Amino acid sequence: MAKKSKNSAVHQASAVTKKPQHKLRVMMLGGLNEIGKNIAVIEYGDSMIIIDCGIAFPDEDMPGIDLVIPDFTYLEKNVDKIKGILITHGHEDHIGAIPYLLRQINVPVYGTRLTLGILENKLAEHKLLGSRTLITVEAGTILSLGAFKAEFIRVNHSIADACCIAVTTPVGVVMHSGDFKLDVSPIGGEMMDLTRIGEYGRQGVLLLMCESTNVDRAGYTPSERNVGSALDAIFMQNPHKRIIIATFSSNVHRVQQIINASVKFGRKVAVTGRSMINVIGAAVRLGYMDVPEGVLIDISEIGRYPGEMITIVTTGSQGEPMSALYRMAFSDHNQVSLTSEDLVVLSSHAIPGNEKLVGRIINEMYRRGVNVYHDDAEVHVSGHACQEELKLMHALTKPKFFMPIHGEYRHLMQHKELAEFMGMDPKDIFVCDIGQVLELDRDSCKRGASVPAGKTLVDGYGVGDVGNIVLRDRRHLAQDGLIVVVATVDMDQRVLISGPDIISRGFVYVRESEEMMEEAREIARNLLTDLLDSGVTEWTRLKQQTKDALSKYLYSKTKRKPMILPVIMNV
Amino acid sequence: MAKKSKNSAVHQASAVTKKPQHKLRVMMLGGLNEIGKNIAVIEYGDSMIIIDCGIAFPDEDMPGIDLVIPDFTYLEKNVDKIKGILITHGHEDHIGAIPYLLRQINVPVYGTRLTLGILENKLAEHKLLGSRTLITVEAGTILSLGAFKAEFIRVNHSIADACCIAVTTPVGVVMHSGDFKLDVSPIGGEMMDLTRIGEYGRQGVLLLMCESTNVDRAGYTPSERNVGSALDAIFMQNPHKRIIIATFSSNVHRVQQIINASVKFGRKVAVTGRSMINVIGAAVRLGYMDVPEGVLIDISEIGRYPGEMITIVTTGSQGEPMSALYRMAFSDHNQVSLTSEDLVVLSSHAIPGNEKLVGRIINEMYRRGVNVYHDDAEVHVSGHACQEELKLMHALTKPKFFMPIHGEYRHLMQHKELAEFMGMDPKDIFVCDIGQVLELDRDSCKRGASVPAGKTLVDGYGVGDVGNIVLRDRRHLAQDGLIVVVATVDMDQRVLISGPDIISRGFVYVRESEEMMEEAREIARNLLTDLLDSGVTEWTRLKQQTKDALSKYLYSKTKRKPMILPVIMNV
Repeated sequence: MAKKSKNSAVHQASAVTKKPQHKLRVMMLGGLNEIGKNIAVIEYGDSMIIIDCGIAFPDEDMPGIDLVIPDFTYLEKNVDKIKGILITHGHEDHIGAIPYLLRQINVPVYGTRLTLGILENKLAEHKLLGSRTLITVEAGTILSLGAFKAEFIRVNHSIADACCIAVTTPVGVVMHSGDFKLDVSPIGGEMMDLTRIGEYGRQGVLLLMCESTNVDRAGYTPSERNVGSALDAIFMQNPHKRIIIATFSSNVHRVQQIINASVKFGRKVAVTGRSMINVIGAAVRLGYMDVPEGVLIDISEIGRYPGEMITIVTTGSQGEPMSALYRMAFSDHNQVSLTSEDLVVLSSHAIPGNEKLVGRIINEMYRRGVNVYHDDAEVHVSGHACQEELKLMHALTKPKFFMPIHGEYRHLMQHKELAEFMGMDPKDIFVCDIGQVLELDRDSCKRGASVPAGKTLVDGYGVGDVGNIVLRDRRHLAQDGLIVVVATVDMDQRVLISGPDIISRGFVYVRESEEMMEEAREIARNLLTDLLDSGVTEWTRLKQQTKDALSKYLYSKTKRKPMILPVIMNV
Repeated sequence: MAKKSKNSAVHQASAVTKKPQHKLRVMMLGGLNEIGKNIAVIEYGDSMIIIDCGIAFPDEDMPGIDLVIPDFTYLEKNVDKIKGILITHGHEDHIGAIPYLLRQINVPVYGTRLTLGILENKLAEHKLLGSRTLITVEAGTILSLGAFKAEFIRVNHSIADACCIAVTTPVGVVMHSGDFKLDVSPIGGEMMDLTRIGEYGRQGVLLLMCESTNVDRAGYTPSERNVGSALDAIFMQNPHKRIIIATFSSNVHRVQQIINASVKFGRKVAVTGRSMINVIGAAVRLGYMDVPEGVLIDISEIGRYPGEMITIVTTGSQGEPMSALYRMAFSDHNQVSLTSEDLVVLSSHAIPGNEKLVGRIINEMYRRGVNVYHDDAEVHVSGHACQEELKLMHALTKPKFFMPIHGEYRHLMQHKELAEFMGMDPKDIFVCDIGQVLELDRDSCKRGASVPAGKTLVDGYGVGDVGNIVLRDRRHLAQDGLIVVVATVDMDQRVLISGPDIISRGFVYVRESEEMMEEAREIARNLLTDLLDSGVTEWTRLKQQTKDALSKYLYSKTKRKPMILPVIMNV
């Protein structure tokens, strides 16, 4: 990297530190213009750190894709610079892609105890546990990483042990909010450390990177503790029901409150759903939950107690097919059959795009006579800052420059408006695309060139082997199905030896369309015979003309355009 | 139909009419456990009427399907009994399938002026206009249809000229609510005719069939007039912007209010989007809208005026791909390019399942610097009754029996609870599945046998030629793609003559997987050679074993299960 020129009066006037040799480079490789897949990169000279490395879930236009991870091209090119990965908290959209990154580059990972506890489960699944370095930090820990010092600072969120991170760089402090809310009465752990954030603000924050999830909601996000009272009321009003509560597995404070209510009303608690069992296991083991002896029972033991003495905590609050709640609703769960003696509580809010899945489960449970409680205003609170808390973050940090992160484009733009409301000059606010680099020194921030960034699709074992062409083909196949035309020719004699045969899948019921298929076969046969007779021997021409003729015929008959695969073999 | 036995004391005691000879049969062939596709059948002896006949839009598990219509099997079987189709209002989920039904059976259609005006456009598209009988009715019209008398009664809804229908049958009155709300200050037309409904209630309603869309919302639905004040405020605050408003094309009262605000603030109004142009055209022609001379201009003329003198009314409020608003957002609209000088107002609420599509358009517009107003609480009101209005319907009609309709299962069950709250005995409330027949006489209602009912899928020109197998194949193809294995054999000599070749689509990038594909080909070649050598000549066995071997190999390599199509030809 080129040294900077010396013509900056401001820098020369600065007596605090020696003149910086490099620009600070900050970029997001994910987590902009989409929900999920958060990953930030901070770079100065030969030092680089990564904050978070999450997955996103595939859109409906990505059929067959399991998950989406960030493009690691830029990180792989700069592997020698990377000092570590810092994780703000243990949600999938912040840690899910770490195993994929650690397969490519072996660097230490820093996070709080619960965060690393959850990550360990993932690394074990990927057979990476033991061969990678995980370093536990606490709120207040300051790491020295190359040119950087990074301090983890307590925030509240819908998972325990979440932090924001203040990175002190040679040109100033970068404050990365992680995901946060302010909870003045948290269930476990401390309130968000406004004091420490404010101290950074007093010393001067060069760049604030702040999440934008709830920027369109006015006011403050309610305390997690509010959910406790709502749960108590439900338990009180339903003394004779078995109570089944679905929530996000990572929300250990929510689970803690379900346990508290169960203890209060004399119920045993059983847990079902793989991720729920994993997370509660880790949380209990690491001391993040307080469960009186004898309260937790195995799901296989629920038959020993009357329903009114049982609470079941389960996954599936987003309607995910094959989740424990889904299997209960569709009578496919080994241990739990739902009846009119059950009350199911959805302690969650449907993530945009999941409304129909959630609705399907609710309908199915109503059909079984199950009582369903799904008023999320009562039994769920968000884990993200609403407008007033975002303003508080801006007011405490008073950043010179601001980059809204973690949101769709409309959220980033609304966050920009919020920052302007807080007094920032629009030119100091940078709404960026993924891969867009910001180059900063002590008193300037400019857009630099972009680095490679975007989506890498994971499908089965394959990482990145499904791209636009494959997806386009999948969408085409899904839309109108497939026609395969097969023929064998003797190219020397220029005669058709066998076929053409036509096979269809996903097109129409063949039995009802026999005549059409017969006519299509006839069209292909005549065409191929004519072409061979007139001396055409190029394969591509034989195939293309067959395809065109069939496509035209089938469209005229059905108004559909199936994918047509001509296969012509030579003997 | 068998005559009823004479051992009913109650019937013999009734002096009002002669003893009924038949049971009244009532059923829904659609519109239960789903939103949309409303169709009710009322049958007595040789008389049958149909109320509404709508479409539903396909779920995400129906790739390639254009729309869903009801199963007409039962109607086709009873074509001689059908006296007519009565339409409550002109929305797609109530009239969309009429052209498909009229293709099968030619019976008269009864509806109000605007409703039939919209239907005429549809019949013209299906080349049925002129050959079918449409009979215009007004609120207050009483039709005599076989054993039935049917009265259309004014209701309010998000389309003009909507009615509920009271059907007087030999055993009592069936009140069908259609879709309704109570609007005490409607924009056009009259308030819902509570008096007439109450008169029926006083005389006695045997069965209430009432819509359930908003049964989970407390209170009353606000008046359409409220939107007018919100629009005025937006026009007032944005004097220098061009204003583009997206809403449902059928909501002529909404469009009327947009025109009113435009006139008030000195703007011309241009309309874009095919369905919007159609509906506004019909509404103006039929006198349902009041547009001062010179206000409406053609979309091609907007360039002649400064943006601040222009309002554009457009379709696309649900984010529909290829709608006018979608094309504007993605710079694909011939007449309208969006810039930071534009304000776009979404005067609508995202229908469940469309949230992501709507979000995508909003993001894209923000990206272009467009101001987007999408707080639906201000600029949109629902057209459906909330809980208090539903209670009003129950209180006015005081039905003997009740069948909740038009909603998902959870809505029907919540509507049942509401009816119980209003004092009904649970055993008099019938939550039915599609096709479930209710058999009624003057004082009893029982579930009878079911009739064929369900979904018929429309794909291109095809009605019903895409079913479960085709859909399953499409989903499979979309999920993991396709492998075609082709080989030519000489079965007499039992040798492989050509191939096997392997072609894949939607599976993986072949270029990056050449080795795997080569190995797959080798596996198929060895297997076929071995089978032929050992004397296997059954086609099914050759194909099945090839399929199994490749499936196993590819799963071990990729964890994916593409559809495998073995094509083995004989010379």
